[in-house]
Amino acid sequence: MSDIRQQALDYHEFPVPGKMAVCLTKPAQSSHDLALAYSPGVAEPVREIASDPVNAYRYTNKGNTVAVISNGTAILGLGNLGPLASKPVMEGKALLFKHFANIDATDIEVKHRTAEEFINTVEAIADTFGGINLEDIKAPECFEIEKELIERCNVPVFHDDQHGTAIVTTAGMLNALEIQGKSIEDAVFVCMGAGAAAIACMTMLVKCGAQRENVYMLDRKGVIHTRRDDLNEYKALFANNTDKRTLQDVIKDADAFLGLSGPNVIGAEEIAMMAPNPVIFACSNPDPEINPELAHATRSDLIMGTGRSDYPNQVNNVLCFPFIFRGALDVRASCINDEMKIAAVHALAALAKEPVPASVLEAYPQVSSLSFGPDYVLPKPMDPRLLPNVARAVSQAAIDSGVATIPTLPEHYQV
Amino acid sequence: MSDIRQQALDYHEFPVPGKMAVCLTKPAQSSHDLALAYSPGVAEPVREIASDPVNAYRYTNKGNTVAVISNGTAILGLGNLGPLASKPVMEGKALLFKHFANIDATDIEVKHRTAEEFINTVEAIADTFGGINLEDIKAPECFEIEKELIERCNVPVFHDDQHGTAIVTTAGMLNALEIQGKSIEDAVFVCMGAGAAAIACMTMLVKCGAQRENVYMLDRKGVIHTRRDDLNEYKALFANNTDKRTLQDVIKDADAFLGLSGPNVIGAEEIAMMAPNPVIFACSNPDPEINPELAHATRSDLIMGTGRSDYPNQVNNVLCFPFIFRGALDVRASCINDEMKIAAVHALAALAKEPVPASVLEAYPQVSSLSFGPDYVLPKPMDPRLLPNVARAVSQAAIDSGVATIPTLPEHYQV
Repeated sequence: MSDIRQQALDYHEFPVPGKMAVCLTKPAQSSHDLALAYSPGVAEPVREIASDPVNAYRYTNKGNTVAVISNGTAILGLGNLGPLASKPVMEGKALLFKHFANIDATDIEVKHRTAEEFINTVEAIADTFGGINLEDIKAPECFEIEKELIERCNVPVFHDDQHGTAIVTTAGMLNALEIQGKSIEDAVFVCMGAGAAAIACMTMLVKCGAQRENVYMLDRKGVIHTRRDDLNEYKALFANNTDKRTLQDVIKDADAFLGLSGPNVIGAEEIAMMAPNPVIFACSNPDPEINPELAHATRSDLIMGTGRSDYPNQVNNVLCFPFIFRGALDVRASCINDEMKIAAVHALAALAKEPVPASVLEAYPQVSSLSFGPDYVLPKPMDPRLLPNVARAVSQAAIDSGVATIPTLPEHYQV
Repeated sequence: MSDIRQQALDYHEFPVPGKMAVCLTKPAQSSHDLALAYSPGVAEPVREIASDPVNAYRYTNKGNTVAVISNGTAILGLGNLGPLASKPVMEGKALLFKHFANIDATDIEVKHRTAEEFINTVEAIADTFGGINLEDIKAPECFEIEKELIERCNVPVFHDDQHGTAIVTTAGMLNALEIQGKSIEDAVFVCMGAGAAAIACMTMLVKCGAQRENVYMLDRKGVIHTRRDDLNEYKALFANNTDKRTLQDVIKDADAFLGLSGPNVIGAEEIAMMAPNPVIFACSNPDPEINPELAHATRSDLIMGTGRSDYPNQVNNVLCFPFIFRGALDVRASCINDEMKIAAVHALAALAKEPVPASVLEAYPQVSSLSFGPDYVLPKPMDPRLLPNVARAVSQAAIDSGVATIPTLPEHYQV
């Protein structure tokens, strides 16, 4: 572990600090080049944009950019360490945007005192970019922040910790339930954790068919139920009209467990109490809510997913955010709406059912199964089909739902 | 002209919109790479920065970045066209930062209602970057904005329209006066224009030896004098205790004319009235305060500079801003102080006196003179010695004046 620690530090430090640089897409060698790139030539695109703002997409990089913005109040599972400490994560996100979807992402770390100040700051700079990816902002402020920014900004705003997680989790859950012979409409869900990701996941599952009364969400005080008077408005959406109060109360006969909380909060005893053929997504990182070996030793009829790359069924946001933004940018969507998110869910779920190409097999030499089944309910991050499949579905959904500015799919989606 | 116009638009539009992209400086091919770049490995630099913010310079790209920030209120000579229309200029500036000094610059366009809102926004995001380059912000707000941001931010803040212009102009003026056999202490200056650049230029000339009572500044209402009651505090610094009221009053026997105003505001008649061996810097772009052919036809004893690349003695900010930031970043200066600015002035002036290397001669095949004299008072932008010479002088000044965090010159300055 300390070896990995040093490797990670060395990776970030050498040969140059950080992970990203700027590069030029136009020549800048001659005086003539510079006269076009800067004064006097640059006055021409300035005038064109002043006369019609849409020309910014034509003459600047706006349309291929995303700002990855955080205030550092909920960095990974590490908590509120402040904006600057979140910078390596935001640069990492930018790296993934570039690597997986050729999006030019810039990290922005925001210092602020109130949510309103954060909102004002992001609103003020938003038009610089083609889209805004919010990241590592603590609940419940993240809900208000995202809602306000969606209203105030002209470009798509997406809180990845909520919706990226929800999209990938829901895609995996749909496939896992199908394999286990369960219908989402009848399944009983237990969600350990009631933060941004948990609420977004359960909201998305409900949008995809789960019954709200079949959802039991737990926070540090136990089951979230209708008699509690300590719930914020977001948790209150999942207050269950039930007498059940503890994890043991709700896990009995549950079909699916979703962990978005912390390590080792559920034991073998609880796993044993679940309904036959259960689904367990233990997404706490790096230490899951239950160790996969322990879960599998407890019962053999389960499907298990984690947030880790070294176990099957990794539930990882990178399966979504590069491609949902690619899809949104490519048709210049004004927002990322529910239709686009649900399209991403189904595109991901469908891709897991397709035979994987040789390149994916080669990228994962240690992985035992890469065909649809209990150990493969989600595509792998290195699958090159993610880009065309998910982005195309998202673009098409934007067009169909009337939020696309460009009404046709880009040519590169024609496979 | 329309051909250049179309060339500039095509340059910005094809093959991809804009001029900049993001690129990765670290491998991102394998699962192992991604585990270092993002979760779980990225938690290590996060922890290191949380425990000591200076580690951001070690594990992120912060130390090599500059944000190029504008509100679009004074774009080039085009006026207040709004933030989005300034984007091609800010991307152009970013291109120049990268090309000339390998600095990774990001453009940020800020929408705001008041100067205070702009200041709050920039302050909130400043720590993301190694430095802040303000650009194309109208006077007099730009003075307050820069002053406040310098106080509030931990990184260098530099308004290029003021100080970049002042540094390059002063370097050229020092050399031109020397060639004309004039001392800066005795020279009489007429400055047409009283905006941000004009005030900064005159302030820098005074810091380099000019006498304030020898400076006559003019705005749209004529000479700025002590009896006027319509002056903001910045213009008031140059209110001259004089009975002279018009350009004709002050240009008579003046040693130097500096134009930072608009096209064709001074004629042959006024040029003829100046003292023997005058210096004329007519920097309005693209159309100077007086056409150089007309000026030279009027009298043969003048030295003439413009903002244009197609005449001798181009007074161009690109001679300064990439290198002053390079020098500041390389010793992690906490600010860009007067000592550093004056060091840049003298480094630029000195470089013009050195014989140019063959590569510079090849880069400017049409230029008649590249040796110190009336047609060569400033180095050329393509001169590769600008980077080491100016940046080294700036770094050394930062060290000597006690604002450098790293107390030694980087090795690459040892020539």
